[in-house]
Amino acid sequence: MTERDFIARHLAPLATAPAARGLADDAAVWTPPLGRDLVFTHDTLAAGIHYLPDDPPGDVAWKLLAVNLSDLAAMAATPAGVLMGLGLSAAEDDAWRQAFVTGLGRALDHFSVALWGGDTVTGLGQAVLGLTAIGWVEPGRALSRAGARPGDALWVSGSIGDAGLGLAVAQGRAPFDKGLLGRFRRPMPRLALGAALGGVATGGMDVSDGLLIDADRLAKASGVGLAIALDAVPLGRPASGPDDLLARVTAGDDYELLFTAPADVDVAALAAPTRTQVTRVGQVAAGAGLSLSLHGQPVPMPARLGWEHG
Amino acid sequence: MTERDFIARHLAPLATAPAARGLADDAAVWTPPLGRDLVFTHDTLAAGIHYLPDDPPGDVAWKLLAVNLSDLAAMAATPAGVLMGLGLSAAEDDAWRQAFVTGLGRALDHFSVALWGGDTVTGLGQAVLGLTAIGWVEPGRALSRAGARPGDALWVSGSIGDAGLGLAVAQGRAPFDKGLLGRFRRPMPRLALGAALGGVATGGMDVSDGLLIDADRLAKASGVGLAIALDAVPLGRPASGPDDLLARVTAGDDYELLFTAPADVDVAALAAPTRTQVTRVGQVAAGAGLSLSLHGQPVPMPARLGWEHG
Repeated sequence: MTERDFIARHLAPLATAPAARGLADDAAVWTPPLGRDLVFTHDTLAAGIHYLPDDPPGDVAWKLLAVNLSDLAAMAATPAGVLMGLGLSAAEDDAWRQAFVTGLGRALDHFSVALWGGDTVTGLGQAVLGLTAIGWVEPGRALSRAGARPGDALWVSGSIGDAGLGLAVAQGRAPFDKGLLGRFRRPMPRLALGAALGGVATGGMDVSDGLLIDADRLAKASGVGLAIALDAVPLGRPASGPDDLLARVTAGDDYELLFTAPADVDVAALAAPTRTQVTRVGQVAAGAGLSLSLHGQPVPMPARLGWEHG
Repeated sequence: MTERDFIARHLAPLATAPAARGLADDAAVWTPPLGRDLVFTHDTLAAGIHYLPDDPPGDVAWKLLAVNLSDLAAMAATPAGVLMGLGLSAAEDDAWRQAFVTGLGRALDHFSVALWGGDTVTGLGQAVLGLTAIGWVEPGRALSRAGARPGDALWVSGSIGDAGLGLAVAQGRAPFDKGLLGRFRRPMPRLALGAALGGVATGGMDVSDGLLIDADRLAKASGVGLAIALDAVPLGRPASGPDDLLARVTAGDDYELLFTAPADVDVAALAAPTRTQVTRVGQVAAGAGLSLSLHGQPVPMPARLGWEHG
């Protein structure tokens, strides 16, 4: 199948929004909502780096969309449309491509996001899948990593470390567990919670490389210290001990939201309508960097805080 | 150099627009101009496919930006910002990356476009460089491939086939020629002309895969025929004969604008303030497909009309 056939037969049927112009023009044209700021993000998934070559193609499509929507969620933005840069190799045969597009269609539907355009390149040595997501936010309500203030409480959504366990399942290093595998392959961006936090949370980001490394980035961007109570961190499966607990908080691919809010804000009440679990895991302190505790006792910082790229 | 170092040391200094937030947040935030439609495009350049691995890195950066801006030009849009998805291999060493970023900075300055964000992935088998360009247009003035009408005149900007000659120079198949090499490596998107054509041209697109193949696409999208007088096609260097002429009009990478306008529109006067050469090369006819002539005599369609991908 040529690129043109692939686009015409498989991608164009997904591009039903008027902005996409049926993928027949050089670019998409969209009338933005009045009085909103726009939010843009671009993340890439490469085969063998960000996903396993034998991950189901529909799940790869889901993850490609989800990791980008997670960045929008971290800015309190509501997604509108995406452009995709699909770089494919011979390993992604027609069956793979069709399954990818079917999964993409389901993911777009699930999150009510439109496919506006992009391009497809074949003949690469490995698949490199890029996606740009565009969303909107009320002016002044976008979250920032730089907004945490001493005295704020530190919160996290959902549960931490499950995707890391799911990666072990996918790699055959741990017994089959559908729930954990799902957390690794089909992350769930916290869009509703993110939107609810806009203008309320003081600082925020998504947890993609590990709770500790991302918390460290939040602390640095805000010029503050963060004290994290490891025993308070919500886990999808109980930890077998302190080493296992540290493995969870340094594993990647959670796509939960990590955010700060003034201590008197009722974050649980704010999150309730979004049906998203939120847990207070620490607080913002003056100073710099992370400090960890376990049942009130200080814990030394592990050598590795999470995924460092490149 | 880690990805983070590369972003902090080389990319962040280019991301001076407030929308980019210093590349420190999960996404860019931009207030769009009031009362404008937005235009989005995404194109990818892969090493060994869209550019030669030994092309100067600064020229690769220029081309990555320019081919995307050419898509905006083809929609009569004015560029505002870009997001980049840089996928790099070990072949792009520190010197390459620095030269790429220097060239990118110059290109962004030249076209007055802001770097808003993106991501960088290392460890790929080959470089895969994606870019999303965002621009704006007055509502209703975006060009479309579907708007050509029988009786319209067919126009092209600049000159055709020079980049194809430049590719031959770059590959050592033709003697050194700085001008032609420049046409291949540093295409010049026709932004001013595109903006001037908005609301006036009936149909339009950019010529990226060859004049004939792109004209064929314009004809199909509009449901019309296009009669092209090959002798009227503007060339940067004289053709040695009919075969050479056909080679020019089927060569890629021109990044000129191909557009239609009612026969009574003074396109030359419209283009004059933009200092862009425009040449009438044919007309729109009822029917379907292309027909070619040379000095009034019909010319059979060549087997290959231009670059077909994949």
